[in-house]
Amino acid sequence: MTDVQETKESLAESLQQIITLLNRHKLVEGLVHKQDMPKHALVESLVHKQNLAELQKKLDALHPADVAYILEALPLEQRLDVWELVKAERDGEILLEVSDAVRQTLIADMDSEELLAAAEQLDTDELADLAPDLPKDVLQELLDSLDSRNRERLQSALSYPDDAVGALMDFDIVTIREDITLEVALRYLRRIGSLPDHTDKLFVVDRHDILRGVLPLKRLVVKDLESGVADVMAEDTVVFHPEDTADEAAKAFERYDLVTAPVVDENNKLVGRLTVDTVMDYIREEAESDMLSMAGLREEEDMFSSVWKSVQNRWAWLAINLVTAFIASRVIGVFEGSIEKIVALAALMPIVAGIGGNSGNQTTTMIVRGLALGQIAGHNMKSLLKKELGVSLLNGLIWGSVLGLVAFLLYGNMALGLVMTGAMTLNLLLAAVMGVMIPLWMTKFGRDPAVGSSVLITAMTDSGGFFIFLGLATIFLL
Amino acid sequence: MTDVQETKESLAESLQQIITLLNRHKLVEGLVHKQDMPKHALVESLVHKQNLAELQKKLDALHPADVAYILEALPLEQRLDVWELVKAERDGEILLEVSDAVRQTLIADMDSEELLAAAEQLDTDELADLAPDLPKDVLQELLDSLDSRNRERLQSALSYPDDAVGALMDFDIVTIREDITLEVALRYLRRIGSLPDHTDKLFVVDRHDILRGVLPLKRLVVKDLESGVADVMAEDTVVFHPEDTADEAAKAFERYDLVTAPVVDENNKLVGRLTVDTVMDYIREEAESDMLSMAGLREEEDMFSSVWKSVQNRWAWLAINLVTAFIASRVIGVFEGSIEKIVALAALMPIVAGIGGNSGNQTTTMIVRGLALGQIAGHNMKSLLKKELGVSLLNGLIWGSVLGLVAFLLYGNMALGLVMTGAMTLNLLLAAVMGVMIPLWMTKFGRDPAVGSSVLITAMTDSGGFFIFLGLATIFLL
Repeated sequence: MTDVQETKESLAESLQQIITLLNRHKLVEGLVHKQDMPKHALVESLVHKQNLAELQKKLDALHPADVAYILEALPLEQRLDVWELVKAERDGEILLEVSDAVRQTLIADMDSEELLAAAEQLDTDELADLAPDLPKDVLQELLDSLDSRNRERLQSALSYPDDAVGALMDFDIVTIREDITLEVALRYLRRIGSLPDHTDKLFVVDRHDILRGVLPLKRLVVKDLESGVADVMAEDTVVFHPEDTADEAAKAFERYDLVTAPVVDENNKLVGRLTVDTVMDYIREEAESDMLSMAGLREEEDMFSSVWKSVQNRWAWLAINLVTAFIASRVIGVFEGSIEKIVALAALMPIVAGIGGNSGNQTTTMIVRGLALGQIAGHNMKSLLKKELGVSLLNGLIWGSVLGLVAFLLYGNMALGLVMTGAMTLNLLLAAVMGVMIPLWMTKFGRDPAVGSSVLITAMTDSGGFFIFLGLATIFLL
Repeated sequence: MTDVQETKESLAESLQQIITLLNRHKLVEGLVHKQDMPKHALVESLVHKQNLAELQKKLDALHPADVAYILEALPLEQRLDVWELVKAERDGEILLEVSDAVRQTLIADMDSEELLAAAEQLDTDELADLAPDLPKDVLQELLDSLDSRNRERLQSALSYPDDAVGALMDFDIVTIREDITLEVALRYLRRIGSLPDHTDKLFVVDRHDILRGVLPLKRLVVKDLESGVADVMAEDTVVFHPEDTADEAAKAFERYDLVTAPVVDENNKLVGRLTVDTVMDYIREEAESDMLSMAGLREEEDMFSSVWKSVQNRWAWLAINLVTAFIASRVIGVFEGSIEKIVALAALMPIVAGIGGNSGNQTTTMIVRGLALGQIAGHNMKSLLKKELGVSLLNGLIWGSVLGLVAFLLYGNMALGLVMTGAMTLNLLLAAVMGVMIPLWMTKFGRDPAVGSSVLITAMTDSGGFFIFLGLATIFLL
């Protein structure tokens, strides 16, 4: 039995051992290099061989998911050293487990032959995950090597967008007819001899593969052997279509606690199935990509990718941020005259802008979450906006007064304190309105509100905050 | 068969219909009120009765998860109207499905008797989810009403922290002995007559409940009826302990694609099981709470909670932000003399600070993700820091030069442009160092790096950015 606690420790330990072995390996190479030993002498060297054998043994003992973990945690050079040592027949499985960014670094290191060999170990639905990262000629060769049924399946899977059920489904379906008894069904299963992973139900179809219902194994093992499949099967099962979005599927899996579910075409013909492990991976990836994009990273990034690749991944949001910062700077530029007269304004203005941004982001996060859960619509917009305005007004009056007092104590200027309080309150109200409206507008124009809402809010509360504070100061203090 | 697309539409439709019915209900009430009709006349009124009957019918037809969705999407007053109409015997299930924040609003509306009735419908593991939200006297009464076995289970579940396996496990375990044949096992199952949800395997135990292995239903239905359970069962199954963290369990479920797994005590005695639906809920909740805390919300917030509750939920981070903004403001205060002489500094300084914050947050997000996946440790810290510094240097030189040029064009001051470029580069380098180190330090001191890293980074890059830019300007321009 595998203890999960031990798994975790041994995984961290494995990583450490592998790094030690890699370093020893480098050390030997380095020594050889210094003594100008010819390359073949190095290859022959006993120490070197021992080292590699030990590393190889270590890697062979690990689950593919664990090898993937180790590859992710290593800088590029060491990663490729380890990758070379992984047994060729495990390449396919491991490529499926690593993240997209790391997969690209591994594939870049393989030649066409190795890639084809790796691909041949995989099922059609697994191939579909890998295919987009393969070089075009390898993909073509791969398609040619498949039989017509699997080629059709792969091409169909590739024709759906990444986040459609059609791209996530697999083809490991076990079907039975409805006009047999459970005893016959069990005899049939024993003839097959093994069932695909995650099989919790059999799909009941007619002779044209039209789905009639599902027979959970749970029922198969407790119901009377004489009963007919038709009497025992569940007919009110949740079904998906290839063009449904993965997001809807994930929600349905969570809502109805599914383990597997049939995927049917428009004629109710069974074409595949969706399993909970795929759905769980999807949920995890989505959550991560939301988090990354909220922070302005374009996509998942290999921690050890080259500096240049990282710069490309990040520059888009930095550029947008630069433009918004420049606009805010120009707003200040308009009031340079006022700042020249009361230089305290320069020191106080970032506070007004900063708190507005923080508060606006809190609001937006709430709204983005509500939108993702489908809980925000026309009917409750008004109550939401009213509540957020209330929160902002209260926060503005409380914190604005505190800051107004501080400003008064620092600069001994009562009017300046009052302007500070007023500007804080107004900017927080602006932040509330924008925090609610920006994600809604983005959704209306078909964009993902999780991506970029934060940058837009901050842009508004910065420029708005500077304008409100410096504007009020110019009116009341000069 | 339920089409997932239809489900979604009909859910949105249901919500719309319920809102319409609620509004009509209010309208009738309003009319009655205006005409000063006595209250009992209203209750008798036919229209009113029809309305409620229709609403009730609508609600009864919905899955508990769907009723929960509708309760979440309604403002407090309407939510409680709907809650009153939900059949009492479904209260328990529905309370389990709603979010913590909404659950509190519903429980606050129920008296002890209703709460006890709702609790009695639930299994022990479900009770454990509900118990922390129940008033103390109700919880005590509930404990008294349980038999000793279930009371022990509930007390044990409550003794584990929310994010421990012990708090997430359930007790729906079906056990068999290893010395019987599959045929006998199947006969036994048919006698039981039904299996708990998500049963994908039976747990094989000895007479002292010590776990010997697991028998997947998948194997039970395909293997020879004459084989012994001991020969067919899997012995290398992943097991959990009640004190394992939910986070480790979630990773193991994803890594090894589990549907259910046994939970054992230190003597390998079977005490419960963990199911994929619980794990999936946990993953979803964790992802959400990370997102909320990154934005500075203390916890999940009911969208329609009172203004005062929201203010409390948000004020902690706003207060911290206020302090950091104040410090940044004091940094500027030190250089007021320089700003008085060159007022352009006031307009340009927020750009340097803003871009630094953005870049630092990108770095931190990468690191927080790496830490969460367990991929960052001593061995790769140096490569990570080197890479991030490289990215920052490149970004600083590119974008710093652009901004330097812009500053030169705007103010016709070459030296000012150069100071701008230098300050941008230095602040981005500061952002890289802090972006890597802050999450690592937080982890070292046992804090969740997802919570608050962003606020700390921004504090550093704001104060640091102002200091670097105004400092350089004071040295080179005055």
